[in-house]
Amino acid sequence: MIIVMQSHATDEQLTGVLERVSSLGFRPHLSKGIERTVVGVVGDERPVDAELFEVLSGVERVVRILHPFKLASRDFQPEDRVITFANGARLGGGGLLVMAGPCAVESEEQLHASAVAVAESGVKVLRGGAFKPRTSPYSFQGLGEEGLMMLRRVADDLEMAVVTEVVTPPDVPLVAQHADMLQVGARNMTNFSLLQAVGDEGRPVLLKRGAGSTLDELLQAAEYVLSRGNEDVAVCERGIRTFETATRYTLDINAVPVLKELTSLPVVVDPSHATGRAKLVAPIARAGVAAGADGLIVEVHANPEQALSDGPQALDPQSFADLMVDVGRVSDAIGAAAR
Amino acid sequence: MIIVMQSHATDEQLTGVLERVSSLGFRPHLSKGIERTVVGVVGDERPVDAELFEVLSGVERVVRILHPFKLASRDFQPEDRVITFANGARLGGGGLLVMAGPCAVESEEQLHASAVAVAESGVKVLRGGAFKPRTSPYSFQGLGEEGLMMLRRVADDLEMAVVTEVVTPPDVPLVAQHADMLQVGARNMTNFSLLQAVGDEGRPVLLKRGAGSTLDELLQAAEYVLSRGNEDVAVCERGIRTFETATRYTLDINAVPVLKELTSLPVVVDPSHATGRAKLVAPIARAGVAAGADGLIVEVHANPEQALSDGPQALDPQSFADLMVDVGRVSDAIGAAAR
Amino acid sequence: MIIVMQSHATDEQLTGVLERVSSLGFRPHLSKGIERTVVGVVGDERPVDAELFEVLSGVERVVRILHPFKLASRDFQPEDRVITFANGARLGGGGLLVMAGPCAVESEEQLHASAVAVAESGVKVLRGGAFKPRTSPYSFQGLGEEGLMMLRRVADDLEMAVVTEVVTPPDVPLVAQHADMLQVGARNMTNFSLLQAVGDEGRPVLLKRGAGSTLDELLQAAEYVLSRGNEDVAVCERGIRTFETATRYTLDINAVPVLKELTSLPVVVDPSHATGRAKLVAPIARAGVAAGADGLIVEVHANPEQALSDGPQALDPQSFADLMVDVGRVSDAIGAAAR
Amino acid sequence: MIIVMQSHATDEQLTGVLERVSSLGFRPHLSKGIERTVVGVVGDERPVDAELFEVLSGVERVVRILHPFKLASRDFQPEDRVITFANGARLGGGGLLVMAGPCAVESEEQLHASAVAVAESGVKVLRGGAFKPRTSPYSFQGLGEEGLMMLRRVADDLEMAVVTEVVTPPDVPLVAQHADMLQVGARNMTNFSLLQAVGDEGRPVLLKRGAGSTLDELLQAAEYVLSRGNEDVAVCERGIRTFETATRYTLDINAVPVLKELTSLPVVVDPSHATGRAKLVAPIARAGVAAGADGLIVEVHANPEQALSDGPQALDPQSFADLMVDVGRVSDAIGAAAR
Repeated sequence: MIIVMQSHATDEQLTGVLERVSSLGFRPHLSKGIERTVVGVVGDERPVDAELFEVLSGVERVVRILHPFKLASRDFQPEDRVITFANGARLGGGGLLVMAGPCAVESEEQLHASAVAVAESGVKVLRGGAFKPRTSPYSFQGLGEEGLMMLRRVADDLEMAVVTEVVTPPDVPLVAQHADMLQVGARNMTNFSLLQAVGDEGRPVLLKRGAGSTLDELLQAAEYVLSRGNEDVAVCERGIRTFETATRYTLDINAVPVLKELTSLPVVVDPSHATGRAKLVAPIARAGVAAGADGLIVEVHANPEQALSDGPQALDPQSFADLMVDVGRVSDAIGAAAR
Repeated sequence: MIIVMQSHATDEQLTGVLERVSSLGFRPHLSKGIERTVVGVVGDERPVDAELFEVLSGVERVVRILHPFKLASRDFQPEDRVITFANGARLGGGGLLVMAGPCAVESEEQLHASAVAVAESGVKVLRGGAFKPRTSPYSFQGLGEEGLMMLRRVADDLEMAVVTEVVTPPDVPLVAQHADMLQVGARNMTNFSLLQAVGDEGRPVLLKRGAGSTLDELLQAAEYVLSRGNEDVAVCERGIRTFETATRYTLDINAVPVLKELTSLPVVVDPSHATGRAKLVAPIARAGVAAGADGLIVEVHANPEQALSDGPQALDPQSFADLMVDVGRVSDAIGAAAR
Repeated sequence: MIIVMQSHATDEQLTGVLERVSSLGFRPHLSKGIERTVVGVVGDERPVDAELFEVLSGVERVVRILHPFKLASRDFQPEDRVITFANGARLGGGGLLVMAGPCAVESEEQLHASAVAVAESGVKVLRGGAFKPRTSPYSFQGLGEEGLMMLRRVADDLEMAVVTEVVTPPDVPLVAQHADMLQVGARNMTNFSLLQAVGDEGRPVLLKRGAGSTLDELLQAAEYVLSRGNEDVAVCERGIRTFETATRYTLDINAVPVLKELTSLPVVVDPSHATGRAKLVAPIARAGVAAGADGLIVEVHANPEQALSDGPQALDPQSFADLMVDVGRVSDAIGAAAR
Repeated sequence: MIIVMQSHATDEQLTGVLERVSSLGFRPHLSKGIERTVVGVVGDERPVDAELFEVLSGVERVVRILHPFKLASRDFQPEDRVITFANGARLGGGGLLVMAGPCAVESEEQLHASAVAVAESGVKVLRGGAFKPRTSPYSFQGLGEEGLMMLRRVADDLEMAVVTEVVTPPDVPLVAQHADMLQVGARNMTNFSLLQAVGDEGRPVLLKRGAGSTLDELLQAAEYVLSRGNEDVAVCERGIRTFETATRYTLDINAVPVLKELTSLPVVVDPSHATGRAKLVAPIARAGVAAGADGLIVEVHANPEQALSDGPQALDPQSFADLMVDVGRVSDAIGAAAR
């Protein structure tokens, strides 16, 4: 960390800062410029809050040198991490894994039809929501445990793995019993109790970026899970809040190469939530792959017009089959290149 | 709701839309323009997702006429709601209620010193965190139940009410046992399980706006609590995420008069989190009051330089006493006006 | 346009609205719902400001049905527009055009070296700034007319076309004398006098999106140029302002398919300014192409470490040659697909 | 400036950085941490682009210690600057100056009626647009020179000063001939040619913040004017682009105390453009004053329903008279306090 003193900071204030640096176990390193004095904080700054220095009298601001996460960083773990499912599907470490299925489990029939459709296009990981975090209390909230059981039965029938969302700590054991991967949704990225619970559970976790959260915060959220001993975490870009209203969210495509640089965790792109419209899903899916994503998660419904939630962004089976061909070609084009 | 058809929508597509409108219990109202056909949806649209129409073939977009919340709206409840505490403090319905205290409960001594300081300035509601949602897993996470007991003892000693944060549903009964008002923090505004749990509990709730959430979403989150039968909800503006980096967040001051128009729930401003720097707290507190806020929640620490969290934004007792004088004068100035 | 009346609007207020609608040459279409009355405005709403209705007593809000631009819309001109340069390079209508060169013209030697490098990779349009809009008055502001002449000489020597920025109306004739395409930069997207001047000049225009501007506003800016009779306009996504600080701007990748849908103007992506870091340029360039962009504009410098501006985002010749191979493969992969 | 080296930077790379630091006339100051080496750049960094170091091999990032503006900074000029008009009105240095009038000059009659109304409430500076920067080419673009002459006649008649917008360098002399203060609007904040032109002209300048611009960039824009020798610059917060759609823009109220800290230039708040709705103007005007603004600029129209532009945000004379009473009371309340 670098502590920048105010232009008129007194010697007494500087002494106070130096003492705080030392008392926290760091070595201070002084540099007097023409208009500002700067104090370097030598040591592992990651577990320390910058605010412990910012608050001191005479301090103008504090600049971090290291990112505030450790286990999640590529510095700590240089090799790509890989998450392997029981059916052999692999996320991370090269190649492209597509997870697909309906937004919500509505009935076994609906789920089965959608799952068959995506399986026929080569998908090995089925997505589907049993517990749905909905903005309005009056919207369909999911089938709960019944939905989980349907997911398991349909997936087993088709030799697929299941990824599904868990929304509150008490539900973690139940969801982990039925699912291969637990999703923490964008609305719960800063629900730290839930992050700890899925960290303790040990199942692979798909962690979505909050729509108002930075990449630094996303990786600190991953650090919550990793620091409980669970190493199977994938992070997912699904669109952030910006001033643009032409689409529901703005997919932060820059996030893909930035995350690949900062972390060795697999990086997934969700083109469905990031755009909110079926017509935009395919180009954005291709862009995510071209930018270097390890995986995609896509909403597909056997009959989008009848969907109980997120219908406008669901692909029908034929559009999804086309998307699979396209992203396969882009993945090959990139793989042939220097990725 | 207004359904706008695509420019080249066919009669068949239009028929499909009209049928969906009718099948959901609404009356369609057709208007053919020169370039677009528009279908009005007559009936109470609030409990219906726009996406049930957006998904239909031939639809360009759907525009809501009513806000998607009902119980929280001023249309539904025109009179200002008032939350009354056991010690007589009142939030809402005119006047200004200031809640203050340290960010986190660190020890009984620290809490007591801070509480005495704010009580001497006339504060009747003590704030202080026992369960702290922290961005980094390595930061101080609060004293938990022990902290709750300290809050209760100190508040009782000074005849103050207690507002404190609860972060996960299983903790709700415990926190409700010790606190007069349960805070749902910005990071949990979209933790719908928690909203339902505090709705069921029945204690007054202070609901903070998520840094990436719209006012519409804030009021839908309030609707989650209200729809469980708990009518004592206050909403709090505490800064949103923008591109400006000079301050930690950007206080959305427009939110104050907009919320006062949309809802009869009390509106609180948090100048401490919205700015992140002690020096900015007083001017922003004054601005919040001038804009029409019913309450303020302010971080005060007997010795900010020793704070374990949020020290840089904590006021010392003297600065807080000055703030109380200032906001009192502004409140009087506004009260004398047409508020 | 749809005019939504307030819930308690009086008959007199409604009459006032109906009269305003008629007096402006539209036909009003009334729809009485349970809680709100809605007035449809039948006619070509594009040239009319919504605020002429919003201001009326009893009006809650006004919703546009049509986008506020006409000449720029795909409704008006369904076929892709193509811009053809004298040397045969084509932008739009299928295929991919890459424009490249240094941020600023620094000397004829520097420019020539960079131009040769990009020409060897197949580039036919040379970029380079002679008039530089710089955030700080103390930064290098470009060589002006001298730089324009260098651009022309180097481009002629290599049979390339020139695209370069113009920053103020009085300079338009001079720049048009030396350049094949006039760039209006992001900082001048809302400099309407400049838009009119380049519209009157008639040379092809590359119009960059402002970092704080919506897609609707970008297309209205294009409309300024088109409405002066200049039909050769390309629009360029170069990153918007968001809360994320890991990159200088956030490339709005969604903008590519949205623009392709809304307009028939060619769509260009600028991965250099959108990321600010050379290492991120290639993946984002690939993503832009995969999303459907017609063109790329990339900063390349023969020796980035010596660049007087934007060095950190400039590619060296070898990295650029690799990028050209990659984007060519992605373009082929997409072309083979359904684009 | 602080240069942070990459974790695996070589000695050779470090040497390259040290040489660049020295060659630019600075003294390097080396600090070797456990995971990163940091190089301090000692000297006046303000006129130097950080990118000259960022581009070097082995550099991870560069952190500025000083703000990139000098003449605009309070460090350089500690005392509040004051702009004095010929009629004795003063902006800055304590007290509150309210500028008011219609959005656009539509006719001498309309202008006179609006001007009389605001003069009766004590306003000494008349605003009104003769050159209007409009998002759509089809909107009313102002009366031009004729409008300027009306402004001058009406203002002289009422002993008022005139502030009006100039949109392009060739118009600067003409506008300066008729106006006491030249406004550079939000859409032209990064039109650097215009900033230079108004800097050279010498008339007082009201510089509005771009909706997508940071405070640092606003003060660098002011630096453009100041660096041409024109010291009479006021900066104006008028709302920024955020994800919130309940209001047209989001007023960044934090900007007021932050600007007062960073600069000694007068700070103005524009509650009309920041909200877009007349009903919100008064509370936001009060908030701006409570936060410490030196001035307000408010749109007032004798008959808002007939306004040709911005009608929905214009106050009628009675609402404005009420606002003047309110902001006067708040100003007194704050003045009595420690402002």
